[in-house]
Amino acid sequence: MAPGPGEDEIPQVPTGTALGEWLGGVGPAVEIALCTRVRFARNVQGYRFSPQMDTDEARDLDAFLRQTLAALPLAEPLRLHELTDLEPLEREVLVERHLISRELAHVARPRSVGFDDAESIAVMVNEEDHLRIQVFQSGLRVAEAYRVAERLDDLLIQRIPVAFSEEFGFLTSCPTNVGTGLRASVMVHLPGLVWSDEIEKAANSAQKIHLAVRGLYGEGSRALGDFYQVSNQITLGRTEDEVLDDVSTAVEKLVEWERRVRDALLSGARRTQTLDRIHRALGTLQNARILNTEECLNNLSAVRFGVHAGLIDDLTARELDQILLLSQPAHLQRLCRARLDPAARDARRAALVRSVLGGARPCRDPEF
Amino acid sequence: MAPGPGEDEIPQVPTGTALGEWLGGVGPAVEIALCTRVRFARNVQGYRFSPQMDTDEARDLDAFLRQTLAALPLAEPLRLHELTDLEPLEREVLVERHLISRELAHVARPRSVGFDDAESIAVMVNEEDHLRIQVFQSGLRVAEAYRVAERLDDLLIQRIPVAFSEEFGFLTSCPTNVGTGLRASVMVHLPGLVWSDEIEKAANSAQKIHLAVRGLYGEGSRALGDFYQVSNQITLGRTEDEVLDDVSTAVEKLVEWERRVRDALLSGARRTQTLDRIHRALGTLQNARILNTEECLNNLSAVRFGVHAGLIDDLTARELDQILLLSQPAHLQRLCRARLDPAARDARRAALVRSVLGGARPCRDPEF
Repeated sequence: MAPGPGEDEIPQVPTGTALGEWLGGVGPAVEIALCTRVRFARNVQGYRFSPQMDTDEARDLDAFLRQTLAALPLAEPLRLHELTDLEPLEREVLVERHLISRELAHVARPRSVGFDDAESIAVMVNEEDHLRIQVFQSGLRVAEAYRVAERLDDLLIQRIPVAFSEEFGFLTSCPTNVGTGLRASVMVHLPGLVWSDEIEKAANSAQKIHLAVRGLYGEGSRALGDFYQVSNQITLGRTEDEVLDDVSTAVEKLVEWERRVRDALLSGARRTQTLDRIHRALGTLQNARILNTEECLNNLSAVRFGVHAGLIDDLTARELDQILLLSQPAHLQRLCRARLDPAARDARRAALVRSVLGGARPCRDPEF
Repeated sequence: MAPGPGEDEIPQVPTGTALGEWLGGVGPAVEIALCTRVRFARNVQGYRFSPQMDTDEARDLDAFLRQTLAALPLAEPLRLHELTDLEPLEREVLVERHLISRELAHVARPRSVGFDDAESIAVMVNEEDHLRIQVFQSGLRVAEAYRVAERLDDLLIQRIPVAFSEEFGFLTSCPTNVGTGLRASVMVHLPGLVWSDEIEKAANSAQKIHLAVRGLYGEGSRALGDFYQVSNQITLGRTEDEVLDDVSTAVEKLVEWERRVRDALLSGARRTQTLDRIHRALGTLQNARILNTEECLNNLSAVRFGVHAGLIDDLTARELDQILLLSQPAHLQRLCRARLDPAARDARRAALVRSVLGGARPCRDPEF
C-alpha cells in the first residue's frame, strides 16, 4: 500500500516484522490462552519513584539503566530505544505489540525500553517503577515465563542497588506491587463464555481468589473481541509460587470452561446459531469496505473461534492472529506508511482484512 | 432438498416452474420498474356483490364464470383452479406469485382463479368483485398491459351481463373502483431513494396526484426490501387514458429520480459507504445459516442494486430475482417439498440463498 495523496510517509518503527512472542501461536492451550506475561517491578535506591522525579533525575537514571541493560550478559543484546526519540506513532506501535504500557508511551519524562528480536523480553525504564521487567511466552506457560524473568531479574539485581525492605520486600511506586513486585498475567480469548452469557460468572470466580479479569482491548469493562487479561491483583503477603499457582490454576479452569461451552455451542440445536454467527462474521470481514477497530475485533473473534473449531477452510490461526495485530490503528498506519484519519483507517483496515481473509471459506455445509 | 424427518411431503402447486411475467426481467427500466399490472374490476348483473353473497349464490356464479373463462377464444386457454380444491400452502404460492390476492386465498366462499402458462394473465373469480381481470407485463409497460387487459375485458363483456350504469360507469363492490374499474400499478425497486432518505419525498409527490405508494412486502407502511407498488387510487371521474398516463408519468419520474440518487450514492465520498453496504449484504447472504424473510429481502435489495450497478460478478439479475420469489415462505416449502416451521424455514432459506449466491463475488477492488 503506497501512501495516498496528501498522506505523509512515516518512519519505520524499530520492531521486527514478526508478530512478537505474544502472538507466537504455540504453547499449551494457545487457542484460548494466547500468551503469558510475567513482570517484575523494581526500583533503584537513591532515586525518588518515577512519578516524583524531576526531568534531570529521570534523565540521569534512564541513562544509568540503559547502560546497565546494554551490558547484560544475554545471548542476544536488548535493542534499546529512548522513547522521546520516537514518533508518537512508533510509540503506539510498541503499545499495540504489548512491549510498552500506554503510560510509558505518553508520559513526558525521559524513559526507555529494551527488547529482544523475538519480543519475548521487554524492559521498561522509568515507567511507574524505575524498571519493569517483562517476559512473554505464547500459550499458557506461567512457570516457564517466570524462570526467564527471574534469571533476568537476578542479572539486574547483581548490577543495581535495588530498593528492598526486609519487612516488606521489594519497594514499589504503587503499594499494590510491594512485596514480590510480581505480576503474572495471561491473555485469554473467551468467545464461548461471552456468547453463552457465562463470562460474568467466570470473571467472578477468578475475582474470588483475588485475580483481576480485564478486557485486553478497549477502556473499562468492555472486552472488545472477547479478549481478556487474567492477572494477580496483590503481591504483598503472597509468595511468588503462590501467585504463579493462583494464576495458572485459574486460567486452566477458564480454559476448561471455555472448551466446554464451545462444545455446547457447537452441539444440537445451538449449532446452527453458532455457525450462523461465525460465518456471518467471516462474510462481513470479507466484504466490508469500512471497518472500525471494534467491529473488526468482534468479527475476528468469531472467526478465530470458527478457525479453531475447524469450521473455516483456507485460513490459518496464524494468519488470523496476524490480522488481530496488523489491523490495530498504529500498525495499520505503519503498514500503509501514512498517517491516516479515522475514516481512511477504517477503509484501509477493511481492505487489509479482505486481502488476508479473502480466500477463506466456510467448510462445506452438509445440510443442503 | 428432500423432506427432513417429521416433515410431510406436500402436493405440487399448479404453477409453472418459470417465475411468471412479474419477474420476467425484460422491458423498459426493468432494473427499477420490475413489473406493470393493469386490472379491471367487473361484476355480473343479477348477483349480489361478493361480500354479500351466500354460499349457493357464490357457487353458482363461480361455476358460470369458470365456464365462461374456459370458453374464451384465447391463443392459450386459461388454467382454471377452484381455490377450495387447493391446499392452504398452494394458495399461498399463488399469492406470492401475485396471481391471487391474499383476500382470495383466505375468504371462505367458492372462488376460482384462471391464469395462463406465462402467468401474464390472471382472472380472479369472486374476489371483492365477481371478476378481477389482471394483466402483467415485466418492466414499465402500462399501455401494453392495458391493451391486453382491454381485449380480455371486451371478450368477457360480450359473454356476460356486466353491471354497468350510464351515470357511474362500471359498478363495483367498493366505491373506490366505480367508474372504469381500472387500476394500473407498477412494482418498483427503490433502494437508492430509501438509502438517500428521499423516499418520503418521492412518495409524497406521487400522492399529490392521487397515486398510492405502498410497500410490496410486509404490512402497513414498512417496505421490506425497498420494493414498492405505485398505483392509482381513484377511478371515478377520471378517464382510462388519464389514469394510465398518471401512473406511467409518475413511475417514469420515480425511475429517473432513483437513477439519479443511485449515481450520487456511487460517486465521490459516498461510494465507499455504498459499496460497504452492498458488499456486506452479499457477505451476509453468502454466509448466514439463519435468514428470516425480512432480513433476506433487505439484503437481496442491496445486492440487486449492486448487480445492476455492475458491482458484483458472477451473479445475474435473473438469478437474484428468482431468489426473491423462491425465498418466500410458501415457495420455500414447496421447493423443500415439506411443511416447515419458521425456524426450519429460516435455516432452509439461508441454505437456498447460499446455494444460489455462493459463487458471486464483489468486483475487483481497485483501491488496495
